[in-house]
Amino acid sequence: MNHILRVDLSRGTMEKTPTDPDLALAGGRSLISALAEAELDPVCHPLGSDNLLILAPGLISGTAAPTSGRLSVGVKSPLTGGIKEANAGGNAAQYLARMGYKAVTVRGLAPEGEGRILVLGRDRSELEPAEGLMGLGNYALAEKLLGRFGPQACIISCGPAGEMGLSGASVAVTDRDGRPTRHAARGGLGAVMGKRGLKAVVLDPAGLKPLSGADPAGLKEALAAYVKKLGGPERHEFMRTWGTAGITAISSARSGLPTKAYSQGSYEEEKLKNIDGDRFKELIEARGGITGHACMNGCAVRCSNVFMGPDGNYLTAGFEYETIALLGANLDLDDLDTIASLDRLCDDIGLDTIEMGGALAVLSETEHFDLGDRRRALELVREIGQGTPLGRIIGQGAATVAKVFGIDRVPAVKGQALPGHNGRALKGLGVTYATSPMGADHTAGFTLATPHSPVGQADHSRQAQINAMINDSLGLCNFADMGSAHGILAQMITALTGTRVRPEDVPAAAWEALKRERRFNRAAGLGRASDRLPGFMKKEPLPPVNTVFDVTDEELDRVFGD
Amino acid sequence: MNHILRVDLSRGTMEKTPTDPDLALAGGRSLISALAEAELDPVCHPLGSDNLLILAPGLISGTAAPTSGRLSVGVKSPLTGGIKEANAGGNAAQYLARMGYKAVTVRGLAPEGEGRILVLGRDRSELEPAEGLMGLGNYALAEKLLGRFGPQACIISCGPAGEMGLSGASVAVTDRDGRPTRHAARGGLGAVMGKRGLKAVVLDPAGLKPLSGADPAGLKEALAAYVKKLGGPERHEFMRTWGTAGITAISSARSGLPTKAYSQGSYEEEKLKNIDGDRFKELIEARGGITGHACMNGCAVRCSNVFMGPDGNYLTAGFEYETIALLGANLDLDDLDTIASLDRLCDDIGLDTIEMGGALAVLSETEHFDLGDRRRALELVREIGQGTPLGRIIGQGAATVAKVFGIDRVPAVKGQALPGHNGRALKGLGVTYATSPMGADHTAGFTLATPHSPVGQADHSRQAQINAMINDSLGLCNFADMGSAHGILAQMITALTGTRVRPEDVPAAAWEALKRERRFNRAAGLGRASDRLPGFMKKEPLPPVNTVFDVTDEELDRVFGD
Repeated sequence: MNHILRVDLSRGTMEKTPTDPDLALAGGRSLISALAEAELDPVCHPLGSDNLLILAPGLISGTAAPTSGRLSVGVKSPLTGGIKEANAGGNAAQYLARMGYKAVTVRGLAPEGEGRILVLGRDRSELEPAEGLMGLGNYALAEKLLGRFGPQACIISCGPAGEMGLSGASVAVTDRDGRPTRHAARGGLGAVMGKRGLKAVVLDPAGLKPLSGADPAGLKEALAAYVKKLGGPERHEFMRTWGTAGITAISSARSGLPTKAYSQGSYEEEKLKNIDGDRFKELIEARGGITGHACMNGCAVRCSNVFMGPDGNYLTAGFEYETIALLGANLDLDDLDTIASLDRLCDDIGLDTIEMGGALAVLSETEHFDLGDRRRALELVREIGQGTPLGRIIGQGAATVAKVFGIDRVPAVKGQALPGHNGRALKGLGVTYATSPMGADHTAGFTLATPHSPVGQADHSRQAQINAMINDSLGLCNFADMGSAHGILAQMITALTGTRVRPEDVPAAAWEALKRERRFNRAAGLGRASDRLPGFMKKEPLPPVNTVFDVTDEELDRVFGD
Repeated sequence: MNHILRVDLSRGTMEKTPTDPDLALAGGRSLISALAEAELDPVCHPLGSDNLLILAPGLISGTAAPTSGRLSVGVKSPLTGGIKEANAGGNAAQYLARMGYKAVTVRGLAPEGEGRILVLGRDRSELEPAEGLMGLGNYALAEKLLGRFGPQACIISCGPAGEMGLSGASVAVTDRDGRPTRHAARGGLGAVMGKRGLKAVVLDPAGLKPLSGADPAGLKEALAAYVKKLGGPERHEFMRTWGTAGITAISSARSGLPTKAYSQGSYEEEKLKNIDGDRFKELIEARGGITGHACMNGCAVRCSNVFMGPDGNYLTAGFEYETIALLGANLDLDDLDTIASLDRLCDDIGLDTIEMGGALAVLSETEHFDLGDRRRALELVREIGQGTPLGRIIGQGAATVAKVFGIDRVPAVKGQALPGHNGRALKGLGVTYATSPMGADHTAGFTLATPHSPVGQADHSRQAQINAMINDSLGLCNFADMGSAHGILAQMITALTGTRVRPEDVPAAAWEALKRERRFNRAAGLGRASDRLPGFMKKEPLPPVNTVFDVTDEELDRVFGD
């Protein structure tokens, strides 16, 4: 795993080169910012030929370490205008790593009106015309490509939303069942892929083997420690039973659930019970769905699921809390079947469910949508796929809806919609939303320390952001909760790369990577003024706790001190 | 002229206070930035209750000095996200100054669903419900209000575009004929007015007299020098004969005319002759229109006009080069009647014609508009007034059209559309577009020095930006060409204010005001990365001169050196 594949769609060329030794310890998210710093003009247009689409497995993806196969996708975001890494499960990262790729970078544009697919395997790398594939939804596309390349292949793709250049567009990755339900969803990276005419990357796993590293015996030893720390099924029972949907009621209880266009932190009890974890589990069990579903080979956590519709047929999978929060409670839709249908549509069109929930919440301030209108919500998401003017406005995300309709209550930071953990109640998360180079993102620094107090949150958020960077750079799922196991991770990196890494080097490298992302953002035009939460969060008390976000600007600036 | 009237629409209050002595020498644009620095949070939302709408006559507006009655409007722009001053002719500035106002500032929001009008006169200041006025176009509104307040009144208003919060919305000022044809058009200030529910400001001139200043004899003397320098009709013959439309052919000859979606600098000869100054004059004369029309009382330049339609009836007035360039050549519409109809629609709906020309040019990259389609262009501008999703997208301006449709060729700087003097050919103007705190704006620093060379343009642009600031702060029309007459201006300011001002103080104060604007923008989030022209201007050679914009980033940063 020591090569970078550089694809140029304008020229139709591919170049595979050994990774610069300086980048040997970078992976996933940290590698993305390193490549961006070296190869990308920060003021380039995110949808132009100069931007890079980067696919990078985590540093330890491809080893036998369970739950380490997150695929990082970058780089310049059409949503935030800054640097972006979003990651997804599925087997893509493991396959890429086992092919020997630390990263695949794609620049240039396919010839006007034509699309391309990139096919990669142990001994193959081909750029092919995307004949008959352009315009397809992710589901039909995956079916077609898996029919051709075999059910074991993994497909990384964009849907119509990406082809249209919508800032809410995701990059989809197929799950172990060959369905495009794992998404590097945030920041519009699907548009970076789709606007350049790259419809899909096909990964053929034939002949691939787990990485054994520079020191196979040492890696085996490190792995044993890793597996022990990760824990067995009993440690992950909550996730295996309810998935992230189990969080819904907990979140509502702590005023963290965005409800009715971010106007409440808790949902009325009688509505909440229609969308909480118990109801979720009940419906899955009654209809023959699956809980405890692993999104990638060898996952220990198994938070995923397969959700059947009322007719008992497959409806969606990887149906998560964030989707239930943003497309459910936040739109006052207390019906899991409607939310699941919205999830399915978003996966198919290739859209971030968080961004779409934010966008529709803003739209509820106009005559085009009323909170609680199930039929209309489905109709509007379908419109995005059709590319009508209104559909495109929504597909561009919450900030664009607010812009177009002249609305000053904009639930976004750096242009990216607020996720499903309210920062007015959970103030450490509010600090992360404000200061993360990623924009408002719960996965970029999740902390619940002293949630309702403004005190000390810069420190809590900084620590959480460092942990998140460790996870995102190594390919670790956040739910593995390994980000702070610096000793084990250092042992594993040392054995894998052959470079001695001390425990303290792990967070130090993560901090350096965060600062690199900040530098990119500054150069791209995102300065201190972008490290602020929207005004309404400082003014409108959030029922029922009735708190506002009252962490000072000075405290926010203390997170990075730059 | 030494009071500031502070209106709070949320509270329904008005407060008239003497101006802080520190601000005695500030006026118009320079006063706007001083008030913004003192009273405005730079990160506030431009359409929220915290932003200020500021109306400020120039420092010498209201004296008997001809051509000095420009009204400056500010402040935080929904289009650029930074500081904004746009100014307009008409009699508004003279009236406000003669009432004793250095500025009127409006904050807060009128009660939900209600609008307000502000009525000002020598001895009156009233805030009234805007009953029956909300939603009206500027023409119907002006007619209604002048019917009530008398034909001598001057109306400052916003059209439906402003009420909808569109970033292309202008603030209209009635001309001497009571028509809303003078616009503080750029930067979306109409939205700052309309979204807070302020539909109009009515200025009743009864009993007003020219300002005689602290030293009436000295002012009279200064005025004589001013008038001599300004020159008589013979000096302004070009403008009196053709108006700014006379520039069209000249601009095309020097590759400065944005043509066919900014893809050419010159228009084909056979099309150019349909929209050039001679054709313009010919149509006006044949149909009983007027050239050499003064937009404000006592104007020496008289660049304005009244343009009749084919039926001989009034169609529009204040029909200018920028409109012909952006809504004509740039959309490949070589028909003055179509362009005049578009101008009329924009004036009525309350839209910046430059921004709309830029927006439609970008839209021509989609299926919604083809260059050259007259009927469709009219239909689309009407749609803006109707507030359809597509209409709103266009009404938000060129950058939003590009955003929504995923287009990376964005003819804008700091979100504001490029005006009618191509910066790839006229490189000093390109430097102004890139670096002006206003975004792409030809009036913010017009220079034609060594147009096709990149050398020395930072100095040319800086000088031109200082001159523009002098004009905009004193209330001088750019065509008066008095910005560099520092001695006369110092003499006038001294006599008017009673504070001794030296000739060198005039440009020094302008430079300070520019730096103040830059500080505001930095704090609002517009850093160095925003001081750049769009990428296509550096890559696509502009026919027929086939030049790109090749002034270096270092040279751009040298303009302000901050």
